[in-house]
Amino acid sequence: MLSGQRVEELRTPAFTVDLDVVKRNVQQMTERFRALGVSLRPHMKTHKTLEGGDLMTGGSRRRIVVSTLAEARFFADGGFDDILYAYPLPFDKVAECAALAEKLESFHVLVDSPEALALLKRRPLHQGKRWKVWLKIDCENNRAGLRHTDPAALELAKAIATGSTELAGVYAHCGNSYHCQGVPEIQSVAQTTTKLVLQFTEKLQKEGVPCPVASIGSTPTCSHPVPEMAQLHEVHPGNYIFYDVQQTMIGSCQLKDVAVRVLTRVIGHYPHRNQLLVDCGWTGLSLHSLGQLPTGYALVDGHPDLKLVGMTQEHGRIESITGQLDFAQFPLGSLLALIPYHACATAAMHPVYYVCIKGQVVATWKPIKGW
Amino acid sequence: MLSGQRVEELRTPAFTVDLDVVKRNVQQMTERFRALGVSLRPHMKTHKTLEGGDLMTGGSRRRIVVSTLAEARFFADGGFDDILYAYPLPFDKVAECAALAEKLESFHVLVDSPEALALLKRRPLHQGKRWKVWLKIDCENNRAGLRHTDPAALELAKAIATGSTELAGVYAHCGNSYHCQGVPEIQSVAQTTTKLVLQFTEKLQKEGVPCPVASIGSTPTCSHPVPEMAQLHEVHPGNYIFYDVQQTMIGSCQLKDVAVRVLTRVIGHYPHRNQLLVDCGWTGLSLHSLGQLPTGYALVDGHPDLKLVGMTQEHGRIESITGQLDFAQFPLGSLLALIPYHACATAAMHPVYYVCIKGQVVATWKPIKGW
Repeated sequence: MLSGQRVEELRTPAFTVDLDVVKRNVQQMTERFRALGVSLRPHMKTHKTLEGGDLMTGGSRRRIVVSTLAEARFFADGGFDDILYAYPLPFDKVAECAALAEKLESFHVLVDSPEALALLKRRPLHQGKRWKVWLKIDCENNRAGLRHTDPAALELAKAIATGSTELAGVYAHCGNSYHCQGVPEIQSVAQTTTKLVLQFTEKLQKEGVPCPVASIGSTPTCSHPVPEMAQLHEVHPGNYIFYDVQQTMIGSCQLKDVAVRVLTRVIGHYPHRNQLLVDCGWTGLSLHSLGQLPTGYALVDGHPDLKLVGMTQEHGRIESITGQLDFAQFPLGSLLALIPYHACATAAMHPVYYVCIKGQVVATWKPIKGW
Repeated sequence: MLSGQRVEELRTPAFTVDLDVVKRNVQQMTERFRALGVSLRPHMKTHKTLEGGDLMTGGSRRRIVVSTLAEARFFADGGFDDILYAYPLPFDKVAECAALAEKLESFHVLVDSPEALALLKRRPLHQGKRWKVWLKIDCENNRAGLRHTDPAALELAKAIATGSTELAGVYAHCGNSYHCQGVPEIQSVAQTTTKLVLQFTEKLQKEGVPCPVASIGSTPTCSHPVPEMAQLHEVHPGNYIFYDVQQTMIGSCQLKDVAVRVLTRVIGHYPHRNQLLVDCGWTGLSLHSLGQLPTGYALVDGHPDLKLVGMTQEHGRIESITGQLDFAQFPLGSLLALIPYHACATAAMHPVYYVCIKGQVVATWKPIKGW
């Protein structure tokens, strides 16, 4: 534990989380959907920590989404329940899913193929418990899921709703909102996804298939919901706990809402090529953004004229966008704070997060890794 | 421990290491420099494991390079000694470096500025021990180091060689060999770097500054050394323990020399867009290659017509390069093996490596993370 330290004393590179900003982000998302009358099932994949999950669920430790089996087990062991493993059921993990389904009050799995459903049917749960199964449908996102127009989706829903499995919900991820620029484009994706999911659940109802929950999600759409989303039962965004530069560019949030930084120190001055080196490479930041930001791989907090032009494993190269670097402004050993392009990716590089209030470390959070 | 399992039984995504290939890679590099009469100081940054270090040092656990303080402490705690922390001395880590220098027989640090040297002078080691300090020079690589032509480099070498510090060596990293294509280009970089480093150490000698060791390194140059390298004292490559697709493209090795894979399973078929999904996203592979390979983000072992066109956090999207995918060839749940573009980057995403001989898991290795 390093509580009580000033952030300036942290060994770099260090991933810091501003707790006040996190709490504000979480509160705003929670209130937004409380006002709409829609349940929030926050996704844990961005932070992967018990503490973050605690904040996102308002302390209930109930109703979450995870993307890996390692997360599912970690949160279950941490006292969480009502966990949705929102990933096309992997054929190698059925036994472990069954163990979780038998242990927890509510462990939900997700399928988008008859083959996956057949695996569940072949492994009924003990004591007559039924598998809670979500159907993943694809509403113009083009990743996992049966297309909402595909008759096979309806057939699969019916098959889920019989025997040892029950249809717990219909799930659509609007990852296509990550290609948006600005609120109108985000809301257009939100509207389309909502409409298509609800059309699908209406079709189900007409066929006499009960489906308790329709859920969509992504941080952009849930940051700017359209009124039609009030007809959904649940939403499942995740990144909003931290936000990041990418989200500011999409239009999900403003820069003041980004809760995370990578602190790094200047380790070299190279005036002959107008460049300084910092002690953060791709092991500390990831290569996301692919260097395509006007400021390279990240924003340098408070220094809009600096550009992180490249990284190797443990080195970052910083230049000025215009004119000569004023090296005296960045002495060897001085701190810079990088604002990550993609918080999920940057968090994934760190074994520990330093959680701060007003520049003081108040806690360390340890994320679960692996699968 | 999962020893005894077949690799096909591993939960995916899984990072596998072919121990026979590792041993061959290590043996070839060792014999290559034994024949040249040059000491090998292998770099630990690619694998970051005690077991890998053991193999690369032929069991001596002596004479290694590391890139982070966390690695330095991990290997020191694991019984390694003669450790060179080949990174421009970070101003926040001097106390911890001093502790290692006092504990180990030989802990070496590296500087490329008078300011960093001044920090060492202000913290003399206990019992009259002198800091072993390497001077980093830049021989056309354009990352860290004083330029070999810069008079300040000579001045810094002289200052290192007095008082509580001693000049342990001159270090140049030929990272520019990563821009090469083919052996002649690699050897040209090797020749230039060797020549410039030796010119610099000759200048030192003329000025009466003793410098015991001249060292250069990078896996490409050390895979194809030029005869002039016999005049060096040490080389410090690292990636060669695993090699990767990038190294095959540079010309350092052949595909049969790449010891690592990421095993992944098919989790979805989407014939309407001629695509399948696998359970490996950027958390399992990294975004290195930036998707620029003809086969996308990786090679799919044994399937030259498959292209990993994109990844999100836990999903990879695979297409065929020509014509329609034969989905029957890749049933749901079946295994594919991705050959990573950059082994250092892919290894960095995994908390455990599955070490195999002929498809049988014989050990698990756990790398050190963080800084």
